[in-house]
Parts: sequence; structure tokens; C-alpha cells
Amino acid sequence: MALVVQKYGGSSVASAERIRRVAERIVETKRAGNDVVVVVSAMGDTTDELLDLAQQVCDTPPAREMDMLLTSGERISNSLVAMAIHGLGEEARSFTGSQAGVITTGAHGNAKIIDVTPGRVRDALDRGSIVLVAGFQGVSQDSKDVTTLGRGGSDTTAVALAAALKADVCEIYTDVDGIYTADPRIVSDAQRLDTVSFEEMLEMAACGAKVLMLRCVEYARRYNVPVHVRSSYTTKPGTMVSGSMEDIPVEEAILTGVAHDRSEAKVTVVGLPDVPGYAAKVFRAVAEAEINIDMVLQNISKVETGKTDITFTLPQTDLPAAVEKLTALQGEIGFSEILSDDSIGKVSLVGAGMKSHPGVTATFCEALAEAGINIDLISTSEIRISVLVDDADLDNAVRAIHNAFDLGGEEEAVVHAGTGR
Amino acid sequence: MALVVQKYGGSSVASAERIRRVAERIVETKRAGNDVVVVVSAMGDTTDELLDLAQQVCDTPPAREMDMLLTSGERISNSLVAMAIHGLGEEARSFTGSQAGVITTGAHGNAKIIDVTPGRVRDALDRGSIVLVAGFQGVSQDSKDVTTLGRGGSDTTAVALAAALKADVCEIYTDVDGIYTADPRIVSDAQRLDTVSFEEMLEMAACGAKVLMLRCVEYARRYNVPVHVRSSYTTKPGTMVSGSMEDIPVEEAILTGVAHDRSEAKVTVVGLPDVPGYAAKVFRAVAEAEINIDMVLQNISKVETGKTDITFTLPQTDLPAAVEKLTALQGEIGFSEILSDDSIGKVSLVGAGMKSHPGVTATFCEALAEAGINIDLISTSEIRISVLVDDADLDNAVRAIHNAFDLGGEEEAVVHAGTGR
Repeated sequence: MALVVQKYGGSSVASAERIRRVAERIVETKRAGNDVVVVVSAMGDTTDELLDLAQQVCDTPPAREMDMLLTSGERISNSLVAMAIHGLGEEARSFTGSQAGVITTGAHGNAKIIDVTPGRVRDALDRGSIVLVAGFQGVSQDSKDVTTLGRGGSDTTAVALAAALKADVCEIYTDVDGIYTADPRIVSDAQRLDTVSFEEMLEMAACGAKVLMLRCVEYARRYNVPVHVRSSYTTKPGTMVSGSMEDIPVEEAILTGVAHDRSEAKVTVVGLPDVPGYAAKVFRAVAEAEINIDMVLQNISKVETGKTDITFTLPQTDLPAAVEKLTALQGEIGFSEILSDDSIGKVSLVGAGMKSHPGVTATFCEALAEAGINIDLISTSEIRISVLVDDADLDNAVRAIHNAFDLGGEEEAVVHAGTGR
Repeated sequence: MALVVQKYGGSSVASAERIRRVAERIVETKRAGNDVVVVVSAMGDTTDELLDLAQQVCDTPPAREMDMLLTSGERISNSLVAMAIHGLGEEARSFTGSQAGVITTGAHGNAKIIDVTPGRVRDALDRGSIVLVAGFQGVSQDSKDVTTLGRGGSDTTAVALAAALKADVCEIYTDVDGIYTADPRIVSDAQRLDTVSFEEMLEMAACGAKVLMLRCVEYARRYNVPVHVRSSYTTKPGTMVSGSMEDIPVEEAILTGVAHDRSEAKVTVVGLPDVPGYAAKVFRAVAEAEINIDMVLQNISKVETGKTDITFTLPQTDLPAAVEKLTALQGEIGFSEILSDDSIGKVSLVGAGMKSHPGVTATFCEALAEAGINIDLISTSEIRISVLVDDADLDNAVRAIHNAFDLGGEEEAVVHAGTGR
């Protein structure tokens, strides 16, 4: 008998009818002889409706109360799914994150899981019950307050529970039927992947692939939890994310796919003294504003002036804070000007096959050149090439690279609109 | 500095605007120098919407999951009120029933409070915070499951917290501005009472007065918590429920008011052997079906047959179960027939003044006779007279008695539509 953890997204439980359909799938899994733990996101628009109410009563709602408010959404969907399962003749018990033992940091709105102590979940399973756990939430270790895990929190809840319960697999049911070689909405012949290693999936997620969030993949890799990405609406085989890239024989290593990201912005600090320590001052200032930077480029110093420029990318939402912080320190750091640009896009090629195939970078750049797309910045890792391009060129860039590396296939992709929770 | 517990009903927080208004009142109380604990019901129609969803996914939802579902309503309203208070510049922290230490029995849907251990509430108050507690809910002592307290549960939560925190007063904000001598929707000159003793309020609640539920008044009396009933929409003085009837000087004792109840039904067991033990069999059968009976009348035995009839009243909703249970035992109990009637109404006169004023029963019956209303059944206690009349005569009966005892006044009543939670 296997132990299966399943996670269903908000659009999969957006109505009573969809809830009944999800319940049928859960009961099928149970009747096939498995122990089943299920994590469900909040129903469809619930979260947006609650956010809207919060905005109506207070301009800057305190984060602690926001977490208390938003976590009710998962409470509702989980108990409804438990009821629907009951209606199909199986036992089901729903637990809040706190009841399921999801212990987190106290960072309301973006808490991290510290530990999972699923004693009550285990007991309920042992009594033959299907267990529902409210995703996206936990309880803070210090103050015992209700917390939320931020974007992708329900996926992370599922993977963390799977790790703590030593589950055989964590199934993530979502709007698409697997991981694709590119976003099928942009590339019409994008191909579903049967398997992806944790490292490749990490790079894909870090580069903007939205099916799985980075934190969830990191958690799965650390605890070696196989993650099976499947569609809630079909019975197609999906994509299995598991295993290390190191275990893939060199001759079988391939290119995983093309990821893109439209959520970044670019900052250039112009006229910085080209003396050791000044670049560090720039990045320390940004770090103090709690902003994560992604790509970095330092231009060659102009000999006549002894000055240089530094360009870096960061989340668009953090751009105003970064500019404000740097401007405040202009005198101390001694640069002449800050330029910023939020109409940029990043396109990345990921895959273990890159290590053993020379010329990938050349083909990559040639493909973009042929499509008439200018490259703004390049950054690479062992299994990834990322470049920054103009936002308007991004879709064309994705298609050009996908095509240049022959990643296309025949199978038609299944895509539904979804939420990011 | 006083400690004030306030409770606001669902209609008082039905919209963002009303929530902001409630927050203003709470902040005023805090700024007047009080510690404030607030219990808020679920917003307006939230409970009905959740019940509707439950019905759509499952015909007979399990009670445990129903409690998990419904308690999210109070979680939402409490965190929103906390946010609105924050927006007005005061600290506020919301707690679930479980976090606030409301320990209950495990009877899902109708749990009883066993104990309140408000350590976290106390700590938050000591740090200068206003505290919000989700009403209507607790956590079961044995299984640590989320429970609900049934009708009037939020009022009971407020009174129980007030008792555990040794609060100076528990203010219940509702749709009407106090306890009236009769329902103002029936009696136009019904008068607001300044004070009512616990015993009188208990009789009023037991006889159908809807402003406070019986359980809440019982709790308040047991722990001697003064309950101040006020309107959420006005600053009128309301009604103070406190003190024992015994403390009222005889010459000041008055008649409290006229209560009515439309929710009962009547059962007559015809042709029961007039031998000791047969009446007991009838009531044992009804008790085994978990049905509470109210009024009882046994007719004089007919000598020629050695048979008698027993009539009793019970909640209308329990009528089918009672008839089924008795019919199943017809052979054993040996009656000839069961008659039932659910178009009845009960009208009651309550007041400590009754003890010292002879002739109250006579005036009561004369008033109904003059109004041409037939009395079906009479039951009395030390401070109450109740009679059963035809449902169609009930409003007239209330008016006739209110008038006969000169209970009317000048002040105009404030009435809003409300919920019963």
C-alpha cells in the first residue's frame, strides 16, 4: 500500500461541481489501495474577494490579521472536499495547517516551513480516513499565530507533508497536464516532458516556469520527494520530477526546455568609482532593502575617468524601493546617475544536456540574431543560459530558441486558466 | 480601568462600511480608558452561503466538517474588524475560539463550553491590544477538533469570556436597543426595560424572547456577569440584565413583560390506561428520542373507561420524530391514538412582581376572554404564567395581556432585521 499526497489548485475546486469531481478522483486513489493525504487551495476567487474586503476596511491591513483572514479560504475548500468525499462513502477528516503540524517562521504573508509534525494526520490515516490539510498555512513556532506561506504555498505544504510522512509520491494537480518544453500559450508545438530531474526543474522554476514554484522544488529536492505534475481535468500521464541530474547517463541528457520571465526590471548604476568595495556598497544597500537581485553585469571601466557602470535585475515590484534606497545613498556611494527599465524580459534555456553539447551558447545567440532580437545581458550556469531582451521581443525569443534546439513535438497541450496559490 | 467584553451580531458587520462603524465604537470604548475584548459573529449572510455550498457537495455533510466550514465565517469577520481597528490607529489582535481557550464538549454543531482558559487573550490585553475572539466556536477537550456552539453561540462566547476574564460588563450589541416588555413588532407601545434580573430574563428567554438566548443568560447568571443589551446603531442606554430577583424590594417588583413563542407543537396521547407508570412510559419514549418537552397537561380520567389523555408541547422541528417514536411503542404503552397540532402559539407573562400581586392569573385569563381567545393549556411558575392558544390568535393575545397589565410606554422602539447566531 502506497501513501500518496495530492494537491489541487484553486481552479480545480472553484465550484461545487468541480469539488465533487476532485472528490471522485481522491476516492478512486483511495479505493485503488492507497493511503491518501490531500492539500487543497482556496476556491477560485475566494482569495481575491477576501483581499478586496480587507482593502475596504483598512488601507494597510496588518500582516498578522491578513493571514488570519486569508487562511479561512483553505479552511472552506478543505472542509467542502471532505464533505464531498463523505458523500461518496469514504471517511474524510480536514485539518488546518496548525492542526496538521505545519510549523513555520513568524514572517506573516511569507512564512517558511521549519518543521512538520503530522501526528494527527498519521493517526487519521491509521484509522482508514482520507486526510485533508489546508494548504498555504501554518502556525508560527514562537507566537503560535496563524501564518501563510506566500506564493506557491499550497504546493510547498503538499511536498513538506509528503516528506514528513515519507510518502511515495506527491501529486500536484494543476491547470496544465505537465511540465512543457516552453509555455504552450507562446509556443504551439511545445512538448510535454515525461521526466525532469530536480536540478533542471529548479533552473526552470527559477527562470520563470510557473507550474511549480522554486520553493516547492527546493523542498522536494532536499527531501527527495518525487513530484508528479498532472492535470486535474484529464487522466494524461503528466510529468514526474525526481532524481538527480547526476544519475542521467550523459548520452541521454537532453535540453529540458525554454523558460521565460516577464516579472523583472533592470537597474543601471552609472559612473561608479572603479575601486574595490564600491560594487559591494551598491549590493549591500539593495540587500538592506530586503530585495533579491538576479543577473549582474559590470561593464569594463573607462580608463580616462576611472569610473564604471553596474547593471542588475530585480523583481519589478521591488524597483521603486531599490531606486529610493540607492538615491538616498548617492553621496556615500558616489555614483553619478541611476537608470531603470521595467520593460524587459528574460528568456532561458535549461537542460543537463548542455554540459555535454558544445556550441549551445553559439546556437542560442545565433537564433536570437536571426530573429532580429538584441541581447541586453547574458548570464549562464552549468545547465542554463539566460539572456535579457526587450519585453516586446520576449515571445519571439522563446519561439526562436525552442525552434533552434528542436524541442517541439506533436502532442497537443492542455491549458486552463489558473491561480498562483 | 474597566474590562469590557463586547459582542456584535452578524448584521452589525454585514458590510465593509458597517465593520468600520463597529470598529469606531470599539476604539471609542478603548480610548475611554477600558480594556476591550470583542466577539463578532459571521458577516450577514456568510453562514447561509456556506451552508448552501455544503448542501451542494453532500446531502448529509458530517457534523465535524460542517463545524470546520462554518467557523471560517467568524474568522473572516473578526480579522476584518481587527484590520479596521488598526486603520483607526489602535492595536488589535484576533484569535480563533481555540486560540482564545474556549474548550468545549465534542458535540459538533451544538457543543457546550466546558472551560475558558484565556491566557493569550490576557497577554494581548496586557500589551495594550484590543482583542477580537471568533464567536460561536471552540475546540473539543478530547479530540482537539473545531466545534460550534449552536444558536446564540456568539453571545455565550462573550459571556463565557467575560466570566473567565472577570470582566466588569458584557455588552451585547444587537438589532434592538434593549429588552422590551413585548415584541415591538407586535405591540406598538412596548416599552424598553432599564434593568431586568437574571431570573426574569431566564423566564423571558425560555418563553421565546429572542434578544438573548437561554444558554447565554444561564451562563451569565451562574457566573454573575452583568449583561448590557444595546443597539449597534444607536447610543441609547439599552437594558442591563443583572442581579438576583431576590434583591429587588417587594414594593418595587414589577411585571417584566410578555413573551411569545411560535416554535412549538402540541401532542395529545389519547386513551392511555390511568394506572401509575403509563405517563412515565410516554415521557421516557420522547426523552429517548432526545426531545425536550415543555408544557404538560393530564386530563381527569374518565371513570367509565379507566383511561386518560396526556397533552404536551415540544419544538415543532421534533414533532415528526416524537410521533414516530410513540407510534412505534403504541402496543407497549397501550394508548389508542395520537393527535398532533403545530398551529399553536404560547404567550407568557413574566415578572417578579407577580409574587406580591394577587389576582394576576385572573386578570390574565379575563384579558384573553375579553379578546375572544380560547385558552388551550395553562402552566405557571413563581414568576411566570404561560398559556397555549391558537397560532392565529397569538399576536392578539400578546397585545391583550400587554394592555391588561399596563406595560405600555411612550418611547419608540428601534428594530432592525437580524440573524440568530
